[in-house]
Amino acid sequence: MIMPQSDLANRVRQGDRRAIARAITLIENNASESESILDELYQHTGKAYIIGITGPPGAGKSTLVDKLTLLLRQEGRTVGIIAVDPTSPFSGGALLGDRIRMQQHSSDRGVFIRSMATRDALGGLAPTTYKVVKVLDAAGFDVVIIETVGVGQAEVDIVNVAYTTLLLLVPGLGDDIQSVKAGIMEIADIYVINKADKAGTEKMMTDLKILLEHNATTGWETPIIKTVANRSEGISDLLASIRQHYDFLEQHGLFEKKEGKNSELEVLKLLSFHLTRAYLGQFKRSGRYDEMIRAVSQRAMSPYQAVHTIISEYNPEAH
Amino acid sequence: MIMPQSDLANRVRQGDRRAIARAITLIENNASESESILDELYQHTGKAYIIGITGPPGAGKSTLVDKLTLLLRQEGRTVGIIAVDPTSPFSGGALLGDRIRMQQHSSDRGVFIRSMATRDALGGLAPTTYKVVKVLDAAGFDVVIIETVGVGQAEVDIVNVAYTTLLLLVPGLGDDIQSVKAGIMEIADIYVINKADKAGTEKMMTDLKILLEHNATTGWETPIIKTVANRSEGISDLLASIRQHYDFLEQHGLFEKKEGKNSELEVLKLLSFHLTRAYLGQFKRSGRYDEMIRAVSQRAMSPYQAVHTIISEYNPEAH
Repeated sequence: MIMPQSDLANRVRQGDRRAIARAITLIENNASESESILDELYQHTGKAYIIGITGPPGAGKSTLVDKLTLLLRQEGRTVGIIAVDPTSPFSGGALLGDRIRMQQHSSDRGVFIRSMATRDALGGLAPTTYKVVKVLDAAGFDVVIIETVGVGQAEVDIVNVAYTTLLLLVPGLGDDIQSVKAGIMEIADIYVINKADKAGTEKMMTDLKILLEHNATTGWETPIIKTVANRSEGISDLLASIRQHYDFLEQHGLFEKKEGKNSELEVLKLLSFHLTRAYLGQFKRSGRYDEMIRAVSQRAMSPYQAVHTIISEYNPEAH
Repeated sequence: MIMPQSDLANRVRQGDRRAIARAITLIENNASESESILDELYQHTGKAYIIGITGPPGAGKSTLVDKLTLLLRQEGRTVGIIAVDPTSPFSGGALLGDRIRMQQHSSDRGVFIRSMATRDALGGLAPTTYKVVKVLDAAGFDVVIIETVGVGQAEVDIVNVAYTTLLLLVPGLGDDIQSVKAGIMEIADIYVINKADKAGTEKMMTDLKILLEHNATTGWETPIIKTVANRSEGISDLLASIRQHYDFLEQHGLFEKKEGKNSELEVLKLLSFHLTRAYLGQFKRSGRYDEMIRAVSQRAMSPYQAVHTIISEYNPEAH
């Protein structure tokens, strides 16, 4: 370890970029010290406003994040950006291009950009993403933006982490309203029709409005914002809309509700992780784990019997 | 309880339809007795061939399942079908129509159809789906087909459960090759272009072939099969292709590999579930759980401290 952990946590809190990068790397590598750093940082979190942006490839997410970041910087806000790249080889090129485009911020100390690879092929948020959000939050960034290609699980994850979730769509992907679809539409707090200078924008507006009529649960009237991100059009409308959503959450006590739910989820995830690691670790040291899995696989033992064995043989003293 | 559990498990094994339906309902309701039934049935599983079918809404999945089932029945095979419905209100109508279309099998004792709702809005397989597969497997169905709308997580789940996974596409959803996309393409063992009498079929073939060139990991050459399911065209080609994939798995020892991996996943899931339930249940009885979550939510306590408290206060004697 190059520096003591509490020193690293302190430096993260002071916004030291190298310390932030190092803390994130420790988290990504699942290093054992990452837990104690997150433990220390935790009390300093809860201040950043977290925005999630999702949408199909080619919708212009990075450009939009770029322009939104510029506007926030003009207002004096600092911005942390987590760009979650699907690991798929097919889309790697485009995403790399996006990263290069964003390097215009690289000399701006008020912006921190980190790309993360997803572990699974399907574009869900890397399991470490929400921990990285905590690091940027504790480091004092006013706004944290999570950007991810929308492929199912990613959207659920982003909704859990972000206060405001934007879904980017592009006119002409009309079928996508059908197939990007039902379930996924419901996660957005704000729809953004990007490239709104293209044909089909009005039809898309109409289609979206019809969908939205079916979807009034929280009382929030999901706005549809038109942008042409590469010409910086509509960005201030979008930011105004994000602020309206912030106000809505505040007025309806939805922040505390969300924080409570997230805290519980985090405790449960962590509890499950620690328990499974402890019990499994001890049983594996008995050297009978592989044999047991083979027995289950051959139907000589049921998974229920296997679990019963692992639990009943556990000895907390051995820890 | 209407009948003793072991009697219910026995009747499931004999293929008694009412017993099968009841066992599935117990699983869906997460009834406590469902575990002992699955425990009993487990040793009788591993015989059914499990096929997964996924694809966007409107691709014709149900019609294809329907025709594939007819063909398998003509060969004398019995077929269990699990149709996973996303809970979204938008697609409810179409899926209901599908169910009605499949009622032509309802008088055939060799076919058992069960619709299941997914719990989350994004169309992942219901967490109980793999347990229902075990019931149909133990009940003696030769083939079990899982049909689900493709929305991200669903595909991952289906790949874990099924031996052969089909991805249905339809010409004219050309953008979808981009956006149904990268990650998801990789899960399919067989691509099916359904409605292959429509314009755009050859272009889609070409596009798919290019994608496939980038994707040669296992050595299996992913075939592309053209079907027009509502006219029963291409169904026997598809079945032949499924059989070729079966042979490939067998020749390369991939069945045991998959079974081993699935068995381990199942043990880990179950272990994590049982441990979390036990520790959390005991801590909740102390009456301090809500207060703890509130403290975490207000940053007065970190999730790590919360988990440490729950684990260190656990007393196995209390169980």
